[in-house]
Amino acid sequence: MYLGNEAWPDLGAYFESESLALVPLGSTEQHGPHLPEGTDHLIAEAFARAAADETGFLCTPTVNVGVSSHHRQFHGTMWVSPPAFRDYVESLARNLTYHGVDRVVFVNAHGGNVPHLREVGRRLREDEVAYAVDWMWDESVPELVDDLFAQNGPHGGPKETAMIQHLAPDLVHDDRLAEARDGGVPSVAEAETIVHGARTFYDAADNTANGVLGDQTDATPAKGEQLFEAATGELVRLCEWLDDQAFADLMPEPHV
Amino acid sequence: MYLGNEAWPDLGAYFESESLALVPLGSTEQHGPHLPEGTDHLIAEAFARAAADETGFLCTPTVNVGVSSHHRQFHGTMWVSPPAFRDYVESLARNLTYHGVDRVVFVNAHGGNVPHLREVGRRLREDEVAYAVDWMWDESVPELVDDLFAQNGPHGGPKETAMIQHLAPDLVHDDRLAEARDGGVPSVAEAETIVHGARTFYDAADNTANGVLGDQTDATPAKGEQLFEAATGELVRLCEWLDDQAFADLMPEPHV
Amino acid sequence: MYLGNEAWPDLGAYFESESLALVPLGSTEQHGPHLPEGTDHLIAEAFARAAADETGFLCTPTVNVGVSSHHRQFHGTMWVSPPAFRDYVESLARNLTYHGVDRVVFVNAHGGNVPHLREVGRRLREDEVAYAVDWMWDESVPELVDDLFAQNGPHGGPKETAMIQHLAPDLVHDDRLAEARDGGVPSVAEAETIVHGARTFYDAADNTANGVLGDQTDATPAKGEQLFEAATGELVRLCEWLDDQAFADLMPEPHV
Amino acid sequence: MYLGNEAWPDLGAYFESESLALVPLGSTEQHGPHLPEGTDHLIAEAFARAAADETGFLCTPTVNVGVSSHHRQFHGTMWVSPPAFRDYVESLARNLTYHGVDRVVFVNAHGGNVPHLREVGRRLREDEVAYAVDWMWDESVPELVDDLFAQNGPHGGPKETAMIQHLAPDLVHDDRLAEARDGGVPSVAEAETIVHGARTFYDAADNTANGVLGDQTDATPAKGEQLFEAATGELVRLCEWLDDQAFADLMPEPHV
Amino acid sequence: MYLGNEAWPDLGAYFESESLALVPLGSTEQHGPHLPEGTDHLIAEAFARAAADETGFLCTPTVNVGVSSHHRQFHGTMWVSPPAFRDYVESLARNLTYHGVDRVVFVNAHGGNVPHLREVGRRLREDEVAYAVDWMWDESVPELVDDLFAQNGPHGGPKETAMIQHLAPDLVHDDRLAEARDGGVPSVAEAETIVHGARTFYDAADNTANGVLGDQTDATPAKGEQLFEAATGELVRLCEWLDDQAFADLMPEPHV
Amino acid sequence: MYLGNEAWPDLGAYFESESLALVPLGSTEQHGPHLPEGTDHLIAEAFARAAADETGFLCTPTVNVGVSSHHRQFHGTMWVSPPAFRDYVESLARNLTYHGVDRVVFVNAHGGNVPHLREVGRRLREDEVAYAVDWMWDESVPELVDDLFAQNGPHGGPKETAMIQHLAPDLVHDDRLAEARDGGVPSVAEAETIVHGARTFYDAADNTANGVLGDQTDATPAKGEQLFEAATGELVRLCEWLDDQAFADLMPEPHV
Repeated sequence: MYLGNEAWPDLGAYFESESLALVPLGSTEQHGPHLPEGTDHLIAEAFARAAADETGFLCTPTVNVGVSSHHRQFHGTMWVSPPAFRDYVESLARNLTYHGVDRVVFVNAHGGNVPHLREVGRRLREDEVAYAVDWMWDESVPELVDDLFAQNGPHGGPKETAMIQHLAPDLVHDDRLAEARDGGVPSVAEAETIVHGARTFYDAADNTANGVLGDQTDATPAKGEQLFEAATGELVRLCEWLDDQAFADLMPEPHV
Repeated sequence: MYLGNEAWPDLGAYFESESLALVPLGSTEQHGPHLPEGTDHLIAEAFARAAADETGFLCTPTVNVGVSSHHRQFHGTMWVSPPAFRDYVESLARNLTYHGVDRVVFVNAHGGNVPHLREVGRRLREDEVAYAVDWMWDESVPELVDDLFAQNGPHGGPKETAMIQHLAPDLVHDDRLAEARDGGVPSVAEAETIVHGARTFYDAADNTANGVLGDQTDATPAKGEQLFEAATGELVRLCEWLDDQAFADLMPEPHV
Repeated sequence: MYLGNEAWPDLGAYFESESLALVPLGSTEQHGPHLPEGTDHLIAEAFARAAADETGFLCTPTVNVGVSSHHRQFHGTMWVSPPAFRDYVESLARNLTYHGVDRVVFVNAHGGNVPHLREVGRRLREDEVAYAVDWMWDESVPELVDDLFAQNGPHGGPKETAMIQHLAPDLVHDDRLAEARDGGVPSVAEAETIVHGARTFYDAADNTANGVLGDQTDATPAKGEQLFEAATGELVRLCEWLDDQAFADLMPEPHV
Repeated sequence: MYLGNEAWPDLGAYFESESLALVPLGSTEQHGPHLPEGTDHLIAEAFARAAADETGFLCTPTVNVGVSSHHRQFHGTMWVSPPAFRDYVESLARNLTYHGVDRVVFVNAHGGNVPHLREVGRRLREDEVAYAVDWMWDESVPELVDDLFAQNGPHGGPKETAMIQHLAPDLVHDDRLAEARDGGVPSVAEAETIVHGARTFYDAADNTANGVLGDQTDATPAKGEQLFEAATGELVRLCEWLDDQAFADLMPEPHV
Repeated sequence: MYLGNEAWPDLGAYFESESLALVPLGSTEQHGPHLPEGTDHLIAEAFARAAADETGFLCTPTVNVGVSSHHRQFHGTMWVSPPAFRDYVESLARNLTYHGVDRVVFVNAHGGNVPHLREVGRRLREDEVAYAVDWMWDESVPELVDDLFAQNGPHGGPKETAMIQHLAPDLVHDDRLAEARDGGVPSVAEAETIVHGARTFYDAADNTANGVLGDQTDATPAKGEQLFEAATGELVRLCEWLDDQAFADLMPEPHV
Repeated sequence: MYLGNEAWPDLGAYFESESLALVPLGSTEQHGPHLPEGTDHLIAEAFARAAADETGFLCTPTVNVGVSSHHRQFHGTMWVSPPAFRDYVESLARNLTYHGVDRVVFVNAHGGNVPHLREVGRRLREDEVAYAVDWMWDESVPELVDDLFAQNGPHGGPKETAMIQHLAPDLVHDDRLAEARDGGVPSVAEAETIVHGARTFYDAADNTANGVLGDQTDATPAKGEQLFEAATGELVRLCEWLDDQAFADLMPEPHV
């Protein structure tokens, strides 16, 4: 069920019996020469909508712009500051509880949002108003990701390429995959971002010329579909697991 | 040109020659028994994308959730607090200037966002980093709106109904138009929200039983199309006017 | 009853039986070549004190500086940022509730304060600690204003001029009324502040050379007195209406 | 020169040749059974206006409500939180610099405002936009205060009583002076607020039954006048001294 | 009992029977040519640990950096802004209440922290979560301080010199005591920081060349020891007094 | 060189020739039944001081309380909120730049601080005032850690146990090592904190009964020493590397 498409009287029954909401969040930021800037929010929305369709849980509209200043040197990257992002997402999630929502799945497709979603989730839980988890598709199927690609590259790499080839093939510049690979960096390790134990890297531009990592030529729409199906299954099961928990069990433990 | 669909190298040319961005903003909130909760952000996005297509100016992804706590009593209304909204939008707009954007059109379809967009716009201008205007489609064609409908009703009324009938007909419950009218309030005046000069009304639920005003049965897809074309034309001309101004002329006057 | 003049033991009886407070708010900002910078706070204070005298309700001291950056290009305009204004007024109003006040009338004479007073009022109400309304004198007697003046001009125009001629005649430069009219702008419409539906105007200096609008020569002390009496009557009736409401009826409606 | 009474064109000459502003600040809070709640802001305004009259420097309208939560247990005390007060005053003072003001005298008559004015003053100075000092009348003539009264009592005591007897005799309940003395506390020392070196006192209600200290029966209008003349003289000389300094000499020293 | 040295199971018994915590706070800032920058936090920690050892009350680790921008012109001074300091200390103290602490002694050795600790303490008390007092050693034994030294000098003077000679003799440059005295200022009075009643001084560098006041040559380790023993005794008695109070008696008085 | 021990004149030479500072940060929080609550700040301080001694770079006093609410259910855990921590650390680091510091090593021994130090570091770098890196000792010698221990356990496990056995043996309850192991969780994997790709764990108490993980019986002082020497070597080399960089090379890349 997609909240944006429903009229309010038709949502009453949902809130009467259910208290879970899927909230898609992504970013609008450079994803190399071959992928669209909307990659992350397109992926987040696709997963959240698919899991909502399959389970009947409610999916909200998408937060399209996240914490991406580390990609700002590349044309078109949009971003908000971490405090602005946290406050916006916290306010949005906290207000959902007015309708009875008490568990939220942040279906997030942008790594830069993660610590901020954790911080928001913690506040909601410590206030005992809601339990929120953040979920990233690729972390739900790590073995499959590793099986499919030799050089994953966390940003703009073959796994994201395959995903957009599957979800929005018109938005992939298939003729630039080799260029993406050759102008980028094969792996995080080769980016040499760790100096004597310290992560010295702040921006994508610090270690890649075109903003991406991995071997994009290894991506295919079929791999994207396989990943999408597998990870959607994980998200569906996460929702079902969450729905099965007693609210009290999701809340903080008491003091020892 | 829609930013979310472009790869970063393809945006370089735009920022080299242009400095305007259209930013759609709406809300996700009840719009009566007949319209979807996404009404406002759907409308905002449609106008911004249409004007961008026609002019070649850049359109960003949409801010889908705005300042709507006054609709919260109806199932599904989402909202963020005014400070969270202002900070998110200001951060988003201010960061666009990193790429050279210095004029922003907030294509907004939700009245509750207006004072906050004004406040953000003022800050950007007083800091002399960008000039932002907020634009609402119905205020650009007031005579046409008045000509087409006898009872406009500012929220969920016939003008918004017609617009969604045109843009997303599947999302309108055409069989509930009479119910929307009969269960709501004909006009703001009849809602009796002014007591001895003071606006005593805070929430939609204070004066309407179903959240909407006006005579929805007066809406047709053809009226929606007519309005859409007319207002898109205004938005196009606004962009062209804004693009023609010298940046210095958009900045604050000096002290007398 | 004026709070500033009372010793604390003499206020105990009031708070025992009453829970309403009038809080005057204005601005200190340019009002053209003919009116004093204190115009708005002088007017607000006069109305609040008069209504308090007539009804016995409590009037607090005045907030003299408001949100006026849009008049800053003219010598002497004082202002605070919107967040500073909101926080100051919210703190002041919220703390009144400690003494039992649960309904507040913001007697406001400056348009620039309005959205901020609304935002504060909404927070107080959503927290269910108090119900606040903002009242502007000219909006309580719109027909009379229209009857008395041909060219109202919202800022520094004949209605404000007549009001100060009545309240503080020594502070009006009567010999500059024609200059005020001729150096300003006849009406908002003629200021051409709307471009294709967007309000492109941020500052008074954007469209007036001397900061004011309307035909000031149309003002007389008698008209000022007539307006003052009429609007004070409205304010008195607003206070009485508010006092008559049950607190629960002033609070937000429950979720549908 | 009082800013609130002037029209903007008449202030141009002042800002051309002068850069000093007097800003009166007080509180609205209980001052015992005999004095009005407005005591502090009445005193602050009287001094600032008198010094402005004598010197020609500019005086602004008054900030009437300050940091007074420590008097809240007594009917009618108004207050704002420290952050709200600081932000309001900082914004007000910082914006004065837009007109060329670069030195500000906070003419303050409420002890509870002092650390906050110091904090604001420090920020203005460290940013090198203005130099602000806070001035309290009784600290400018400490010997005279000690000469005139045996039991000063810092709050609502004879010095404040005498001052209001001089400035606004109608607002003093002269028939309650003995009651004020007998129901209060003779001196800070007798209030026993220090325990083993720690100030354990937070609120006036912690150690006084009626909110005041000292021997109020020792006050006379003549003493009030004497104090007013003497302290006004000090304020005048402070303004002249400040006006004589080079701006650079008022700014922070460089790093050693 | 020092919290930092204990394993969590060993703290359970303490929180079961006691609810008091000593929190040492100081600064890291210039203390003249003869004393270490850590002077204030070394002193605070020494007192808090000694009183905890003597009484069995709990002492937490030390807050080492405080509000010291007024010493910034001298090499090495560290500081945080007042809001950052207040929020950090408030958060730290408020969270102690989770374990049952409801009375806190801020053992503070830096004057610049005082108004901020008061503000934090007030918030904790007004929220009725804890009662906090701030204690400075030299204010607990004022007569002894006066007896021991002719020229106290509040910052880097003989009392602080003697204290470090006692607590950490290796950190005192005894060969620079005369230089400290001769290059500094004998007393606050001679620093001439008051102009017509206004404190015109913001930074130590405004009136001292080497950052310190008083006659440092008057300090001896024996005097330091005498002061330490005497003031520790006061702190011990303060803790015992505080422990003896009923919590309700420490909370704010009700409205009169 | 340890800043806290130096008098200001002796720091002048350092700042003339060097611009690097080591800032130790830790936490005060439960570390199981066998380790002291100060574990993390003791470790951080030891590393920072050792590297400063070896290289001559400047080490500041320690921030002893960090972001640890996830350990709050165990007696004695202290914490500050994430915003309070970030603001305190940012203010502290930013103000170091006043003395010429433009590169900072956050020597951090608490994982919960990491995302916040990254956020602070990013702000400093984007403002181009300083370059800060955060360093954790165990991440600098990952192979050695893996070689020495079979069950590392990230919190309170054998690596931290060995470290405190080396640095402060008196503070380790060696007789509780088996109890620590048996009452805790062997590894993160066995804590089963990931559900279908989502990290469902917020607090240590969610999945451990005594707050710790790993096999503590595997720890020895000798292993602690070996780790300390190896990791100190890495920190020394990090400082030297950082010192060798041109400041411009540490700043953000320009827009492509």
